[in-house]
Amino acid sequence: MNTSATRWPVAVLGATGAVGQAFIRLLDGHPWFDLVEVAASERSAGKSYRDAAKWLEGPLRASVAGLTVKACTPDEVMAPIVFSALDSGVAGEVEAAFAKAGRLVLSNAKNYRMVADVPLVIPEVNGDHLGMLAQQRALRGWAGGIVTNANCATTVIAAALAPLHERFQVTKVFATTMQAVSGAGYPGVPSLDILGNVIPYIGDEEPKIETELGKLLGRYDGQQIVPADIVVSAHANRVPVEHGHTVCLSVGFATKPTPEQALEVLRAWRGVEAVRGLPSAPEPALIIRDEADRPQPRRDVNEGRGMATTIGRVRADHLFDLRLVAMSHNVVRGAAGGSILNAELLVSTGQLAGLRGS
Amino acid sequence: MNTSATRWPVAVLGATGAVGQAFIRLLDGHPWFDLVEVAASERSAGKSYRDAAKWLEGPLRASVAGLTVKACTPDEVMAPIVFSALDSGVAGEVEAAFAKAGRLVLSNAKNYRMVADVPLVIPEVNGDHLGMLAQQRALRGWAGGIVTNANCATTVIAAALAPLHERFQVTKVFATTMQAVSGAGYPGVPSLDILGNVIPYIGDEEPKIETELGKLLGRYDGQQIVPADIVVSAHANRVPVEHGHTVCLSVGFATKPTPEQALEVLRAWRGVEAVRGLPSAPEPALIIRDEADRPQPRRDVNEGRGMATTIGRVRADHLFDLRLVAMSHNVVRGAAGGSILNAELLVSTGQLAGLRGS
Amino acid sequence: MNTSATRWPVAVLGATGAVGQAFIRLLDGHPWFDLVEVAASERSAGKSYRDAAKWLEGPLRASVAGLTVKACTPDEVMAPIVFSALDSGVAGEVEAAFAKAGRLVLSNAKNYRMVADVPLVIPEVNGDHLGMLAQQRALRGWAGGIVTNANCATTVIAAALAPLHERFQVTKVFATTMQAVSGAGYPGVPSLDILGNVIPYIGDEEPKIETELGKLLGRYDGQQIVPADIVVSAHANRVPVEHGHTVCLSVGFATKPTPEQALEVLRAWRGVEAVRGLPSAPEPALIIRDEADRPQPRRDVNEGRGMATTIGRVRADHLFDLRLVAMSHNVVRGAAGGSILNAELLVSTGQLAGLRGS
Amino acid sequence: MNTSATRWPVAVLGATGAVGQAFIRLLDGHPWFDLVEVAASERSAGKSYRDAAKWLEGPLRASVAGLTVKACTPDEVMAPIVFSALDSGVAGEVEAAFAKAGRLVLSNAKNYRMVADVPLVIPEVNGDHLGMLAQQRALRGWAGGIVTNANCATTVIAAALAPLHERFQVTKVFATTMQAVSGAGYPGVPSLDILGNVIPYIGDEEPKIETELGKLLGRYDGQQIVPADIVVSAHANRVPVEHGHTVCLSVGFATKPTPEQALEVLRAWRGVEAVRGLPSAPEPALIIRDEADRPQPRRDVNEGRGMATTIGRVRADHLFDLRLVAMSHNVVRGAAGGSILNAELLVSTGQLAGLRGS
Repeated sequence: MNTSATRWPVAVLGATGAVGQAFIRLLDGHPWFDLVEVAASERSAGKSYRDAAKWLEGPLRASVAGLTVKACTPDEVMAPIVFSALDSGVAGEVEAAFAKAGRLVLSNAKNYRMVADVPLVIPEVNGDHLGMLAQQRALRGWAGGIVTNANCATTVIAAALAPLHERFQVTKVFATTMQAVSGAGYPGVPSLDILGNVIPYIGDEEPKIETELGKLLGRYDGQQIVPADIVVSAHANRVPVEHGHTVCLSVGFATKPTPEQALEVLRAWRGVEAVRGLPSAPEPALIIRDEADRPQPRRDVNEGRGMATTIGRVRADHLFDLRLVAMSHNVVRGAAGGSILNAELLVSTGQLAGLRGS
Repeated sequence: MNTSATRWPVAVLGATGAVGQAFIRLLDGHPWFDLVEVAASERSAGKSYRDAAKWLEGPLRASVAGLTVKACTPDEVMAPIVFSALDSGVAGEVEAAFAKAGRLVLSNAKNYRMVADVPLVIPEVNGDHLGMLAQQRALRGWAGGIVTNANCATTVIAAALAPLHERFQVTKVFATTMQAVSGAGYPGVPSLDILGNVIPYIGDEEPKIETELGKLLGRYDGQQIVPADIVVSAHANRVPVEHGHTVCLSVGFATKPTPEQALEVLRAWRGVEAVRGLPSAPEPALIIRDEADRPQPRRDVNEGRGMATTIGRVRADHLFDLRLVAMSHNVVRGAAGGSILNAELLVSTGQLAGLRGS
Repeated sequence: MNTSATRWPVAVLGATGAVGQAFIRLLDGHPWFDLVEVAASERSAGKSYRDAAKWLEGPLRASVAGLTVKACTPDEVMAPIVFSALDSGVAGEVEAAFAKAGRLVLSNAKNYRMVADVPLVIPEVNGDHLGMLAQQRALRGWAGGIVTNANCATTVIAAALAPLHERFQVTKVFATTMQAVSGAGYPGVPSLDILGNVIPYIGDEEPKIETELGKLLGRYDGQQIVPADIVVSAHANRVPVEHGHTVCLSVGFATKPTPEQALEVLRAWRGVEAVRGLPSAPEPALIIRDEADRPQPRRDVNEGRGMATTIGRVRADHLFDLRLVAMSHNVVRGAAGGSILNAELLVSTGQLAGLRGS
Repeated sequence: MNTSATRWPVAVLGATGAVGQAFIRLLDGHPWFDLVEVAASERSAGKSYRDAAKWLEGPLRASVAGLTVKACTPDEVMAPIVFSALDSGVAGEVEAAFAKAGRLVLSNAKNYRMVADVPLVIPEVNGDHLGMLAQQRALRGWAGGIVTNANCATTVIAAALAPLHERFQVTKVFATTMQAVSGAGYPGVPSLDILGNVIPYIGDEEPKIETELGKLLGRYDGQQIVPADIVVSAHANRVPVEHGHTVCLSVGFATKPTPEQALEVLRAWRGVEAVRGLPSAPEPALIIRDEADRPQPRRDVNEGRGMATTIGRVRADHLFDLRLVAMSHNVVRGAAGGSILNAELLVSTGQLAGLRGS
């Protein structure tokens, strides 16, 4: 747990966008982290946060509204822990600069997710992968480091399949997603495109789902992450839902479970022990619904303050072994909240020694 | 073609519901069929159609508005051709009574779809299956008969896969549907359930998709319909879309096509020759879109006056052979329009001899 | 305040509907009230609540799920305080029976709202009108009594105009509402009617708005409620919003305020003193937004845990004196939460002496 | 009528936006106008239209898709008639340049609407105001000229009130609009702002409604347009509707009509005689619905191929004289279709002599 008497100063990079705003909401009143800086693009830098951001949801605390937006450089941003909601177009360079400057970067961008020495982590699922951070620092000579969380749709899938993979070994996955508009940020999806409509395509989403799952469910052997041997085929769709990605899954296993066995395993699962009790950890991490028509994004998305994954319709599959439906909050569980939970796990397990702010 | 100088008198059973209303809209000005009777439940019988129905879409012609709603019995309803939009709870008995009384019933209900001597027909796909009607009449001693069309989601899938099955033989299908609310009729889905939401379940829908596809893509050998040997696994979802069912498909074949070969076959396909040029036949039956983000229900649902099927995103699959997305109008192509096209094909091929009205 | 050491046992009539469910959600963990009974129509009576209700929102506590639904009669329902979410078709008789049997009925139905000896109360606005309850009991010889809360759209208007009426005396109101679908209950508005649509009509809604406002803003002189002399003209519309009624108002006054004066009065208003600090009382009751584009139902509806009214766009009117926009949660502030706050005020002001349960 | 054997060549300025696309759809197959050029911003100029525009609705004809987008200058664009869907930021200068160069500009921008010598025209309502064009040309020494159509919300109101104004003289109007997202163009309203929401503000919309109505319902005396003396107070709202602006109106008159008298006048109205029979003129221009719950945008928006105005709920008002609800298609009737009808009226009445293309 966090043994320091004071809270860690933290910053948010890309603070004006939809995920940046979610970081600010979730950090409000956080027991371990103290949001002291917000940074964004040159266009916003120098303005007050109130003026730079079109605030989308809930109240904006005056103490944040009055912060001056900084540029995204380690010379300007002082905090030792930085949460990054940067676009992938700039995240590569900026996040490396911060890591090199001794900061811990918790990133939502895709840039480093599949890089061998960068942990890609959903704490309950593979929190032990954070061990790679030590190698990353050694290898790159960084006092800081980069830890990533997964694509928001992949996060739903990995959380739902982790318990089953542990026990029955997932080998094949068909995943059809129905993703909320908030996944595209703000302004994101034009209303003329999505009102009363489905868009059966999200740029670059299917490859992320297909590659990230293996790493997330892979094994960290102390030296490297050995990816799980899973073939994934994905269909990504955008639907007129505000928050919550729903995924229909057909899954094949090395050891075929019955639906009853699967349900038992899902219900019993508690995930990585060190995560339990962390400030942002949902309890339980998985919610299993018995009703035929759940999960539903509008009704289940805020379970566990947006950090839980809701699962339903666990049943046999005619081609593979099991079918199920899983859903979680794409902005909280699948983005900002996931990063914060990663940071909490690093703090609580004492892996942040040596970080330095400017 | 229709060689008779006059139009066939036709009736609609279950005329007040959403599909019944679609029949009325589509029969308005039909060159071969003259809507002379509407029938519905006892609750509506005796009222004017205007008073009995809550008319949902477009103008209601005065000549229909003024019709007196009849009870659904062959004693009251005189027309030799009856389009049935009855609920499955009553369709079984009522449709048989009409067939026995010498009428041709074109049914949207599930009751007879999987019965061996009842044709289950999408004209362009398996119009030749209508030949079973002769056996049905002989077998049952009926002067009339029953012809069914498929479930609206199955219709999307069968239309999209028929060309590929002809050439490469479909063996395995994963189908995830995103279905419009009009598929549930009226009042159907409460707005509190579906606004900004996804419901990952539609009662009894997945079994229909999984069983009907084989019969639709089966072979009629002059005696019976030999179903295609296809294993289907379906995920059915309801989404906040008015009209148009979208389906994500992963498909395995006996002969593996490349996406390019599949596209070539889809583009070249014209379907059962006898259907072309019929009043309700779309030309072409399949529309192949090149854009990455099509088909979309709101933008493509009215192609071919609601009778075309739009297909896009034909690409390789990592587990089976191909992925694609298909969409068509669930109330027109998938229900009322499909029945009418069945009737047109029966008329044009002279299979209606011996029908009698009361 | 509530001086009794134990909580009052309470019941919900009409417990399976949308407002009934809101009562159950809001009573969960209530410091003064203990939900011990649920009652509904004969169709539901005898079933467990879990089986009788289609639960719509949030978790359903097991202790409620397991309650047996009772019939809506004072012989079966024991609690001295009953919250009524009954339809107006049955509320008239049932609520009177409970009042006669010594129970306090807090009603959402329209039946008794405009009856002279029945208080129609929004606590912050006219909590003193509860004094009528004593006359009602005396007049009718009831040990119990009936207290009503206003129509959900009227509630928005009355809360926003009360401060201005106190100071400038409202005389004329144009009100155009844009009302959420939850206002129609469940199943309520069919999705085919409202997806991507506006329905410019809600049965019987405009007369309620036009008559109730005067009573709400009226003066209780210790003997009777003297209605305020306000002419209201209303346009009621249904829009595809889940929760939250938005109302555009043009208002004329006896003493014309500038927008600045109006804003000052609205910001300073605290409402009936006795209400402040009650468990369900929002603090503040009115939230005034400066942004040009607020209030918005999806973004502001949960302010004050659904009990606050959000006001914006206070500006001059070209025909009357002021224009403004107000919005509050129709199911919480405008229905169940309003009833509960009424009950809290009665408890805290000691007006419940003599109530008896069976 | 159009006596020329050949069609007029026409161009669309601002052709890639939502209104520009509507022009292209509506000009497809037009009997009098031949779309030969499309022009847009520098960013698009030089590209094929297919590449420059994200086509939103319906099929894009290949002949248009292949056009090269020109810059918006009269040197590049040759057609004598230009339909302008330009943003107001550039429309002022560009439209004047075209008019000066001898072209007739039919503009949707606000820039010239309230300029004294520029006709602001809804043909059925005030088609005679086009007479101002001659004075404009004389005054400015232009061979061409500028004709404007009204703001899309004002168009709904003016069309509905014109018959009543002719007969009873409108003096006061309260107008609350519920406007479709297509009114904001593309990408326009972000889906995160409007899904399940109402935005009670549209920038600069209320002043347009409040000023344009008087000019539209004004009298052209051969020299100038004498505005009608009407005070308007507007509330503009955005709602999650694709197409169709709905307006709730409370109206005061110099001569008070009963609702029955108003209905009779509305039903009998045919508008400016010269407009009837024009290719884009709806017949009738006004559709009066008796049902309590109409008009509705999704159900009525395409009446008269999007050119009709649907009116309902004509009833007494408690403060003024009448209440009613009106709705029309904001992109067709309220923008592109209105411009085209203006052009048709100019052609058919021979007011285009002297125009010259480059």
